[in-house]
Amino acid sequence: MSVSQPIYLEDLAVGRVFAAGPITVTEEEIVDFARRWDPQPFHLDHAAAKAHPIFQGLAASGWHTAALMMSMVAKALEGLPWGVVGSGGELQWTRPVRPGDMLRLEVEVMEVTPSRSKPDRGTALMRNRVLNGAGEVVTEFTPRIIVQRRPGA
Amino acid sequence: MSVSQPIYLEDLAVGRVFAAGPITVTEEEIVDFARRWDPQPFHLDHAAAKAHPIFQGLAASGWHTAALMMSMVAKALEGLPWGVVGSGGELQWTRPVRPGDMLRLEVEVMEVTPSRSKPDRGTALMRNRVLNGAGEVVTEFTPRIIVQRRPGA
Repeated sequence: MSVSQPIYLEDLAVGRVFAAGPITVTEEEIVDFARRWDPQPFHLDHAAAKAHPIFQGLAASGWHTAALMMSMVAKALEGLPWGVVGSGGELQWTRPVRPGDMLRLEVEVMEVTPSRSKPDRGTALMRNRVLNGAGEVVTEFTPRIIVQRRPGA
Repeated sequence: MSVSQPIYLEDLAVGRVFAAGPITVTEEEIVDFARRWDPQPFHLDHAAAKAHPIFQGLAASGWHTAALMMSMVAKALEGLPWGVVGSGGELQWTRPVRPGDMLRLEVEVMEVTPSRSKPDRGTALMRNRVLNGAGEVVTEFTPRIIVQRRPGA
């Protein structure tokens, strides 16, 4: 599918997968993000991170990984005429993201529900998974998004 | 409590509230964040945002609001010796955040559970709520975090 082709609710078959990436996370970016939004030692400093009982090494802020996920979601789903609009979902950070990690995104359509009251739209439950270079899931987010129906459908 | 006083699991009574903020969100910041992480028209451009069927005006990326929440959480809970470490939770964006909004944070302790296997730690279920100047909740996140127990307790 061309990137300029619109994606309507009718195009979201359960099980369909959209992908984006890979992108590589640099140490500079990890530290920059942390300085501004999440200034904790294990996101800023190697020695402090190494001594931390859980991280045991420099790791990206979970909100940084989430922001990277969003940047890939915007690309993977750029065909949605209303964009990617959701009211939230379950967010899980399953593994740390380290400097140099290569991340990619897979978004799978889990459920599709036309609106009962608004004939121009519906919702779709999506499972966003961010995977590292070893194919391990590092972050998962399952939002319900609002999607336009095909006009005249 | 002084900011330098450590907060251990034993200090997290259910119902205790930690607070931080307020901070004001500028239009420039909203657009800067969106350009880098969530480049969708309703986060970037007034006219496009006004025409959007759901946003109806420029709004911050939900991930921007989440990052602002984290910056306040790091302050509110800076007494935690291991920092704020969690594996995720339910994230809800309940209202749009607009340019000029003043945001503050309330974190309430919901549940506290000592670890059965690791005597040095436990978990706490926290409810992070970001409120705007009108006192409305704009974002809520309920992570379970890992907290050190008081040494020798």
